[in-house]
Amino acid sequence: MAVNKSDNRTVIALDAMGGDDGAVMTIAGAALAHERYPKISFIICGDESVIGAELKRYPSLTAVSEVRHTPEWISPDQKPSKALRRGRKSSMRYAIDAVAKGEAVSVVSAGNTGALMAMAKFVLKTMLGIDRPAIATVFPTQVGESVVLDLGANLECDAENLIQFSLMGAIFCNAVLGITEPSIGLLNIGTEEMKGHDEVRMAASILRDRPLPGKFHGFIEGNDIMLGTVDVVVTDGFSGNIALKTAEGAVNLMAYFLRQSFKSSLFAKIGYFFARGALRKMKLRADPRRYNGAMFLGLQGVCVKSHGGTDPEGFANAIGVAFDLVDRRFNERIGEELAVHYGQMEDLESKRVKSLSAKAGKE
Amino acid sequence: MAVNKSDNRTVIALDAMGGDDGAVMTIAGAALAHERYPKISFIICGDESVIGAELKRYPSLTAVSEVRHTPEWISPDQKPSKALRRGRKSSMRYAIDAVAKGEAVSVVSAGNTGALMAMAKFVLKTMLGIDRPAIATVFPTQVGESVVLDLGANLECDAENLIQFSLMGAIFCNAVLGITEPSIGLLNIGTEEMKGHDEVRMAASILRDRPLPGKFHGFIEGNDIMLGTVDVVVTDGFSGNIALKTAEGAVNLMAYFLRQSFKSSLFAKIGYFFARGALRKMKLRADPRRYNGAMFLGLQGVCVKSHGGTDPEGFANAIGVAFDLVDRRFNERIGEELAVHYGQMEDLESKRVKSLSAKAGKE
Repeated sequence: MAVNKSDNRTVIALDAMGGDDGAVMTIAGAALAHERYPKISFIICGDESVIGAELKRYPSLTAVSEVRHTPEWISPDQKPSKALRRGRKSSMRYAIDAVAKGEAVSVVSAGNTGALMAMAKFVLKTMLGIDRPAIATVFPTQVGESVVLDLGANLECDAENLIQFSLMGAIFCNAVLGITEPSIGLLNIGTEEMKGHDEVRMAASILRDRPLPGKFHGFIEGNDIMLGTVDVVVTDGFSGNIALKTAEGAVNLMAYFLRQSFKSSLFAKIGYFFARGALRKMKLRADPRRYNGAMFLGLQGVCVKSHGGTDPEGFANAIGVAFDLVDRRFNERIGEELAVHYGQMEDLESKRVKSLSAKAGKE
Repeated sequence: MAVNKSDNRTVIALDAMGGDDGAVMTIAGAALAHERYPKISFIICGDESVIGAELKRYPSLTAVSEVRHTPEWISPDQKPSKALRRGRKSSMRYAIDAVAKGEAVSVVSAGNTGALMAMAKFVLKTMLGIDRPAIATVFPTQVGESVVLDLGANLECDAENLIQFSLMGAIFCNAVLGITEPSIGLLNIGTEEMKGHDEVRMAASILRDRPLPGKFHGFIEGNDIMLGTVDVVVTDGFSGNIALKTAEGAVNLMAYFLRQSFKSSLFAKIGYFFARGALRKMKLRADPRRYNGAMFLGLQGVCVKSHGGTDPEGFANAIGVAFDLVDRRFNERIGEELAVHYGQMEDLESKRVKSLSAKAGKE
């Protein structure tokens, strides 16, 4: 069935072939999302025969879906540059193209992250006023959840990039976690004003004076991320990626030591027998990746990256995030906040020029 | 008692006033270290009246100790620059001065990290061939322990700094963990050759071709640190500090969730009752700070920073690390490895010049 855009529906394009379990997982995930968000219509990109076979199980999903056939897809280990050059007929690219053409408002893929970023950036372009897109995710904390960005799209960031990430992160936090006036922290190696390199100190000094879609907390340190000191953690892609993966490593180490501890004595084994249900839940809760993937912020179009290894439940959640971002006008609000931000910068600049001219006049 | 240097003893200078519990803790720690390493003599710097009172409990420690009196000490929250200017009569500075004068071979302090680094760098200077000192510590991993550096002494590092850290880290790993030919990994956001910023890629390309006091593994990612993929993890001070503190945060989050899990049901409470001993051990084992502090590598003199909140056992361990570093000729070996490293660089350079001259001759 062709998707009718006129009836106030939200059209989301899916890369049906991305992820470890391909169309079996993505179509089941779409069916779940359809139950939760009946307003979504889908453009499903990938191998028609496989998708068609899966869709037969879900007639009501089929009724709101259009299939775009292509036999090609991007493998998980393909280099981004190669994917960009040779992947023009891939299911991932078809899904992104649907957004570029205005047929869909958002793309969701569980495929190769680097390829998705490269293609999305090339095809969709960054938003007006955003120099570089950022990858964001949601971390579990002792008091709830926090947004962390950038997680690897930009290795080196200047102060202006960090400020743009702060704006986008705060709006994202509001749209996805529902936090009004989220607190924003810049990741640093100390909390005193003179700490850190030039970029982070300059970003802080600008953020202190600017109107923001949240409140600027100042610097935070690595341990603050999972303590939940702030709602939005802003950093460059190198440090952010290392923080995310180091946190994963520490959680895995604790889980490993925990298993060993429960084997270390008869008492401990008895303890495990009683506590195992609660413990399983705990590991899931502390996993920084449980929020299923990363969101690409700052593109002309909403792009959500689901885990490669996700299940239909996780993929449905990723579709839900895409829906929320569209529903809560995420991209439009970034545009509005940027206008305020740069408007104030122009005001300041014109005031500075006026005061200089006035001074010159007096002399 | 004055310390006699002629009888083949190792003299270690202690900042007796550093750390949350001051001289009570440091003197008890020195007494423990004296039992384990009877070859150590001590120069104990700080308030004579407090130190004297504590020393009364340990006559055999008193017999190998000399007290250097000063009533001043550096507070834990003093800025490094201020400590440097105004702390010339502090217990910390006295201990460092003892190394600078050649009276002691090593300094151990549980005081203010930033002040200790600033003073040690200013007074002792860096080793010949080392541009910048680095802070190293030992992380727990799934397979044992790994050395990680730099943890915050240098925010921005060029390729040459990273190479010097690799040399120092490998020799440190060998001296402290006893690992022969340790594997060295450069922390990055991916393991492929083209990943990362210029500095880290250039360092990798040089490390691949150079003789090393270990073997170069290549790039590793954040999750590899606690997986134990390599013996020595090398990174800049910004990323290293964030990795250390994020790992701490993740361990604390897991411990917090664990406590909550054990309260979540009657079964879980029974489980906790049986398993609590094993669990307590686990948390201790996973704590990246349990190794008691950080070592400053690359100074003319061995400088070991113990935790501020450490107990006598931890402080004795820090003294043990200082002894091992001296005993295993840590600083001398860095000098030797640097000579090999730069020697080979000169060889390469002279070969290049010769080949260029030969070429020029032919033309």
